[in-house]
Order: sequence, then structure tokens, then C-alpha cells
Amino acid sequence: MPDLRKDPILGRWVVIGTERVRRPGDFRGRRLPRRGGPCVLCAGHERETPPELLVYRDKPDDGGWRVRVVPSKFPALRVEGDLERRGHGLYDLMNGIGAHEVVIESPRHDDALARLPVAAVEDVVRAWRDRIVDLKRDQRFRSIVVFKTHGLGEGAASEHPHSQLLATPIPSQALNDELHHARAYHDYRERCLFCDIVHQEAEERSRVVVENEHVVAFAPFAARFPFETWILPRRHAPSFEHGSAAELRDLARTLRAVLRRLERALGDPPFEFLLHSAPFAESDSGWYHWHLEITPRLLSPAGPDGSSGFHVNPMPPEDAARFLRDTGD
Amino acid sequence: MPDLRKDPILGRWVVIGTERVRRPGDFRGRRLPRRGGPCVLCAGHERETPPELLVYRDKPDDGGWRVRVVPSKFPALRVEGDLERRGHGLYDLMNGIGAHEVVIESPRHDDALARLPVAAVEDVVRAWRDRIVDLKRDQRFRSIVVFKTHGLGEGAASEHPHSQLLATPIPSQALNDELHHARAYHDYRERCLFCDIVHQEAEERSRVVVENEHVVAFAPFAARFPFETWILPRRHAPSFEHGSAAELRDLARTLRAVLRRLERALGDPPFEFLLHSAPFAESDSGWYHWHLEITPRLLSPAGPDGSSGFHVNPMPPEDAARFLRDTGD
Repeated sequence: MPDLRKDPILGRWVVIGTERVRRPGDFRGRRLPRRGGPCVLCAGHERETPPELLVYRDKPDDGGWRVRVVPSKFPALRVEGDLERRGHGLYDLMNGIGAHEVVIESPRHDDALARLPVAAVEDVVRAWRDRIVDLKRDQRFRSIVVFKTHGLGEGAASEHPHSQLLATPIPSQALNDELHHARAYHDYRERCLFCDIVHQEAEERSRVVVENEHVVAFAPFAARFPFETWILPRRHAPSFEHGSAAELRDLARTLRAVLRRLERALGDPPFEFLLHSAPFAESDSGWYHWHLEITPRLLSPAGPDGSSGFHVNPMPPEDAARFLRDTGD
Repeated sequence: MPDLRKDPILGRWVVIGTERVRRPGDFRGRRLPRRGGPCVLCAGHERETPPELLVYRDKPDDGGWRVRVVPSKFPALRVEGDLERRGHGLYDLMNGIGAHEVVIESPRHDDALARLPVAAVEDVVRAWRDRIVDLKRDQRFRSIVVFKTHGLGEGAASEHPHSQLLATPIPSQALNDELHHARAYHDYRERCLFCDIVHQEAEERSRVVVENEHVVAFAPFAARFPFETWILPRRHAPSFEHGSAAELRDLARTLRAVLRRLERALGDPPFEFLLHSAPFAESDSGWYHWHLEITPRLLSPAGPDGSSGFHVNPMPPEDAARFLRDTGD
């Protein structure tokens, strides 16, 4: 069972694997990525994953499927057991309880979210929502993040289009920090910080990448990375899973449009995205507003970004947005 | 002139280059690292750097030198001009005023901090101190960080042993977050959080890597990365530049010992380190305590660490510390 340990200086919780002693040799050199499928996430290999938690099929009893969700074979946190919190001198820790799931976005190894039809991206977004609704019933969990890494991992399965879901007994430090600032802003102005940002971006337009009825995608004013893009719903809503069908559809369309434009402009760049949604206890807060942050990793991905404590972004977000606006889907 | 722009959601300041419009093509693909010297930081190429700010020589008028400090040729921030703060709708920004300097740790391209004699590492640490003392006189600056990246950059000059110094008109968000937690701890207990950590680590010993009279190096309880190692002085002191000669000497010895052990155990791994020192306004605070954080980047350096908002570290710090203890200098 891994530990969740808290760094008292920054307040962040870290997952520490304690399953087996690793040796320094395990970390020497870099494994070469294996390329090409098929992998355990491919159609026809369903028995090589843990039993599925959710599946969308065209017909019941058909072997085929559009999206599957399975528990991670290499979970960061373990789903079995009771949560036990304890102290160790001045330190705080708990056992590493959580759910770590893999959303297989397509049965085909060589697909990519950017190249799937809109309906398939909608399936993926609905799968996130359906799993969150289910996991929220578990009283041990307080927060869920959905995230994806593309072009950054190792091994064949890392190339198969998939996103991940992590349900945790504590919100991440980044989410706590967002809540802290958003609450302070709301205390001062009685308005949602994110709603104000959406209004200013929609009015200024210089950082908008694409928009439609329910969501806006824009390069954030203080972007850390070239071509960093955020997608926010126009309507105030703390929790992603409370999004309407129309909002989720517009999110899927916009996510696909942004990823297609990044691919066109930059040639399949490595990227991450992370869905930020309120911790369960703040599902109805006036100050939090769910959103998706997409961060391409272009500048020497292994590089020293932020080593100084400051991110240095050579690409003004106004220029990045203009390039992506001018790039068609 | 770059901008310093504040992200209102996380409170972090980001440097945004606005010098020239870049095109997406500038970010396509990855440049191959050029290997081998000589480079502009090598002995004999002194005229290719901006004029030096500090130099340690064995004899005056000798062309030779042990350590040089020069302004960065590619500064993240600009040293000329007045600081102008302004708002832009709900956003905040200022012009990118700051000092960005390069500490050339050796005249020889193929040296490495881990392989220099102790006296040479002491020179480097003294050069940091001397530059900080000088830069503190500039009323525009409020904080200084010293950092180093090794094996993560691109281009020949990135391989020449050097560290960097960034003086900024605002502290980094990470430093503000540390201050926030340390102040809350001090308010509650009337003790320095870092002093308490040093006491617990020195007593428990399971995470200690090396120690001597004035400083302790240990794997932090909630290490984000395998073999992450922090060096703290035993004596409470908020600001690095107020360290005694004996403390700086012990820091140099310990830094060298840790880097040598990392190199031995892991084979010249990529790493970063960052010197955390109090912002000038808190130079005498009871709650801050300068320290150096060394973070090897072993797990797929281009990888998804922290993508979920949680760092996942498969190497318990107790095991990492034991391996490094058992590895001689």
C-alpha cells in the first residue's frame, strides 16, 4: 500500500510507493520507448486489462466497443481498504487510498483524440462524467481529477489514446491553491473570478482560440507554456459532472478543435491536459468554476522550465492565440 | 522588454517574452543537443560573454580565473529601466525588470561540480553570496534565487558547469507558499518549521544522507522525486547570504558530497537544484530558514510527473537515503 505523505513546507501531498525496495540501478539510463501496437488497451486484448468499470457499445452483446474504462494496472493509489490518517513526529500521512482508472478513448492503437470524430470525443467526455458520478458515492474520496498525457510516456500502452482518472482522499495542492485565490477574490468582489475571466477574454478577443455557445477556449493571460490553452464553460458551475449535455458536447467539440489546431500548427506536439473540478465539498460554491487546462510541452520537454521558480514563456499568449485561430480545424 | 504577468487563479507570476513574434515553426521538433566544447563560457573565450560582474583569480592581472560571474546573454528579465506596475482589466502585470546572471563554476568545459575539488565548490558558493550581497542594494529587487540545471539543457554552453542567479521584483509563488506555511506554523507553535524538521531528521536518521557540523543533507519525508535531497543549516537563519564562513564551507562540502553520491549511484543523472532564501523584507524573520533543494530527474524526464496534480514517487525517501549513505563520496 503506498503512502500519501504531506510536505509541511508547501502543504502538498505526495504519493510514495512503498511496495518494494527499488535500487539505484532501476533509475540508471532511460528505457527506450517501444513503438507501435498492438497493446493491452487495443481491441482484442480485453482480457489483458482488469475487468471493465464502464463500456460504451453500439449493440449489447457485441464484442465491439467505442470507449472502455478499466482500473489502472499500475495504480498510483489503491482502491481497497479504509483510510487511516496518522502523524509521524511533525509529519502527516495517510495510507494511499484512491481510485486510478484508465479511459480507453478508442479501440484502435493509432488513433488520437485530435483525429477522432466529434461523436467519439463526446463519448470520452461522457465517460469521464459517468465515472465521476459513480466514484463520488465513495465516502472516502473528496476530489477527482481527469488528466491526459500525450507523447510524454514510455511503452506501447502509453501511446494508445487514453486519459486517466484519479479519485483522492484529499484535493491536490494546486486545486487547494486555486480555491484559496478564488475564494479571496469572491470575498472581495462577490463575483466568481473565473466568470470575470471569461467575460474579459470574450470581450478582448485577443487571446481567444475558438468558442461556441457554451464554452470558450483561450490562451491564458499569464500562460506558462507556448500555446497553453484553457477551456472554460460560460455558465458558472463549480463541478464538471454537473455540466449539461449541451455544455459537455461543446466541451468535446472545443477540445477536439484545440487539439487539431495544435497538431496542425506544431506537428503532433507532446501535451498534457488536466480537468479542474471542485472538490466534492465545494460542489455548490459561488467561487469555483470547472475548466480544462491544455499545456503543450514544446520547449525542451526535459528542460529547466520553472527551475528558478518562475516559468519563462517566450511566446506571448496573444500571438499563440492568433496562430491557433488562423489554423483551421 | 519582457512582461511579468500574474495568473490571478494561482497567484503565480510568469515571465512572458514580448521581444519578437515567434512562429509555431520555431517550436516544431526538437533541436539536437550540440555536444562538446569549447563554448563561450570556456577559458580563452572571455570576450564572447558580457563584461564580468565578479571574478576570482589566483593572482591579479593573471588572465586565469577560478570562477566568473557574467550577465546572462539570454536574460529572462532585463536589468535596465524602472519598475512599472499596472493593471489590465482584472489582470496585473509589470515590466520584466530583474537581473539574470551566470556563475561560471570552472574555466574547463568538461568539469562538473561533483568532480571539482572542495575549494572550488567553496568558490562557487562564495560567488553566489557575493553577488547576492551586491544585488540586494538594488531597491527594485525583493528576492533572489540561485539555481542550476545539469543534463537538461540544449547547446554547448548549457553543458559548461554553471549556475544561475535571478533577482526579481517579486518573490516566486513557490517561495510565497513556503513563507505562508512556515508563518502559520510559527504562529501556532512559536518555533521555526525548518528547525523542527532538522531536529526530527537528525534524531530519526533514517532519511539523512550526509551531515557535518553546520549542515544536514536528507531525503525529505514527502520527496516528490527519487533521490530528492535537501540541505539545511542547523542554525536558524532566514537568509543564505548571512551564513557564516564555516556554514558556507560546510554547505559546499555537503553539496559536493551529495552530487558525488548521486553521480556514483545513478551515473551522472540529470538534476536541478534551487537555493531557497528569504525575500529581503523577511531577512530577519523567525519562521524562514534558507536551504538548498536538489531534485534528480530520473523518471522519464520528459514524463508526466505531477500531471494529475500529485507527484508519484516510487522510491521511499528512507530507501533513497540509505543507498546514498552507503555510496561513498
